[in-house]
Amino acid sequence: VADSEPDFRCRYKVVIDEPEQALSNAGESALVERLTARLGPPPAGEVWSGDDTAVVLIGDEPLLFTVDSMVEGVDFDLSYCTGSDVGWKALAINVSDIAAMGGRPRRAVASVTLRPELPVAWLDELMTGLTDAAARWDVGLAGGDLSGGTEISITIALLGSLVGGPVLRSGAKPGDVICVTGRLGGAAGGLIALQENLARSGAVARLVDRQLRPRARLEAAAALAGTRPSSMIDVSDGLAIDLTRVLDASGAGCRIERAAVPVDPDLEELGDRLDPLAAALTGGEDFELLFTLVPERLDAARAALHSAGAELTVLGTITADSNRQIDTTDLADWRELAWEHLQDRSRTFREP
Amino acid sequence: VADSEPDFRCRYKVVIDEPEQALSNAGESALVERLTARLGPPPAGEVWSGDDTAVVLIGDEPLLFTVDSMVEGVDFDLSYCTGSDVGWKALAINVSDIAAMGGRPRRAVASVTLRPELPVAWLDELMTGLTDAAARWDVGLAGGDLSGGTEISITIALLGSLVGGPVLRSGAKPGDVICVTGRLGGAAGGLIALQENLARSGAVARLVDRQLRPRARLEAAAALAGTRPSSMIDVSDGLAIDLTRVLDASGAGCRIERAAVPVDPDLEELGDRLDPLAAALTGGEDFELLFTLVPERLDAARAALHSAGAELTVLGTITADSNRQIDTTDLADWRELAWEHLQDRSRTFREP
Repeated sequence: VADSEPDFRCRYKVVIDEPEQALSNAGESALVERLTARLGPPPAGEVWSGDDTAVVLIGDEPLLFTVDSMVEGVDFDLSYCTGSDVGWKALAINVSDIAAMGGRPRRAVASVTLRPELPVAWLDELMTGLTDAAARWDVGLAGGDLSGGTEISITIALLGSLVGGPVLRSGAKPGDVICVTGRLGGAAGGLIALQENLARSGAVARLVDRQLRPRARLEAAAALAGTRPSSMIDVSDGLAIDLTRVLDASGAGCRIERAAVPVDPDLEELGDRLDPLAAALTGGEDFELLFTLVPERLDAARAALHSAGAELTVLGTITADSNRQIDTTDLADWRELAWEHLQDRSRTFREP
Repeated sequence: VADSEPDFRCRYKVVIDEPEQALSNAGESALVERLTARLGPPPAGEVWSGDDTAVVLIGDEPLLFTVDSMVEGVDFDLSYCTGSDVGWKALAINVSDIAAMGGRPRRAVASVTLRPELPVAWLDELMTGLTDAAARWDVGLAGGDLSGGTEISITIALLGSLVGGPVLRSGAKPGDVICVTGRLGGAAGGLIALQENLARSGAVARLVDRQLRPRARLEAAAALAGTRPSSMIDVSDGLAIDLTRVLDASGAGCRIERAAVPVDPDLEELGDRLDPLAAALTGGEDFELLFTLVPERLDAARAALHSAGAELTVLGTITADSNRQIDTTDLADWRELAWEHLQDRSRTFREP
């Protein structure tokens, strides 16, 4: 086997050999891979499944096209958040996907499913969050659809435009530095704080804000464009999963120092309720930008991000071998701890 | 009041004066109107809420942009349909919206929420229905999103292109003839047949097919383009609601003969389980095209539709006054019987 190609993809993959098994035995990643295989290849110039957004060509200019849902009981819970929080986040997570492609969000449509017993005021609040976020990122809310159901669900489809070419997940090259904006783990810490009903002041208030009111890194992504990142993704499911996606798409390995991971310092406030490094690597929902670029442009990238109000942290380096390690721990072991839809693993926020 | 402008809009409108009331007291139409008021006016050349799809301008060419969801327990029930049925219909209802704007569907993204205990085979079936419908109407399924939840929900966002200008709901003029393709009420009949578990053969099988496998009238809409309909909408919520939408948007009245309504003859098979005329006027989900045009082009429209395999029926005439009647019954009385999301009225399929 020493002569064979390095296998970049199979270490965490769940093979679905029995279609009668429950979806929860398979998990989101394996199912998405199963679905993607049925989409067929896109026409030239388009990118379908497998990146932060699709790239589609209808007229002359490529468009970014994405959709994402927030489901009650899975992505949020009314015991700890308002309709306005839900509306804000539903749009923000889609704007983050457009940012991670190097694009600009333009028009959105929303499909909203509500429980009939909710007050009209809840829908008013939802609309406030949606319109606030739309104003923040200059998105036109062009319409939508309203349904009844037994759980609340907000789906936003967002169209974006591109200035340069799209920044895909697949462009990371050996020798590139791996960088991330901001601090990680805060959104997971905020979720813990909300679930444990901690008083929302100081560090806890900031963590809760990261969970309920994420800021898409749109200006940071635009500022980075001139430094031509070789790949980019937003940290929506945690560094361990999202970095794995970049490495899988690029056919590459990595070497990362655990001491380099920019753990959100506010997590200290939570004491032993979670392991801050585990939250940073597996928490997700931080919506920071994870990107790679040639080392020669690192200083320019740092300066560009600084001008956009964002910090840059170098996590490590892209490698040509198939090793993927954070110090001596395999990235796949961290990845196993991260959240996936439709799986029945529980979360621990502890080291593997 | 004899001198005042005719009031085209207030007869059925639910005024939401108390935000603490339940959504179910208000109903979809009133809520959508409340939401639309908060979207702000669109830029020149765009159409936001209030038509079958939005029209957005990102590059030089206008795009059609729409989203629609199918929710378990509301729009379908696994006791009577397969994953493939759900996938087909989820795309078909969006294609129908693009058709009703005079457009061509191009790319879709799907957000799918599934119950974790469902078998992987159910998702495979869903994908079969989606890809079959995508192939039927030449839509590229460009990606999506997968979540877990306690009820199944499929949301499709669809982008379309235009050949000519969009055909809006607002263009009906006094003197125009009101026309519809195909027969009405069959989809509602199919739902009754499914709910009562009737044997699926002959007329019942055709009704069930109309409910589970709707055919968007895309070729018919394209064939009509040359005859320049003044307004168009798809019959998704029933003639009484959808015609009211055209009349509201156009600021017009109508005069319709009940004998002219093309009731699906297969409904006779259901005996006294429903009133066929009520099913035709309030059933919805037939996804036929309701359109208006100047009488001089009626023969051309009939010939164009015939070439696309569709029949044309003249229902009546657009009027300048605010009367809206089907024979001597007010359209609003029929409208009250039709289905709306988020309302607690029950359906009867009987005459008002």
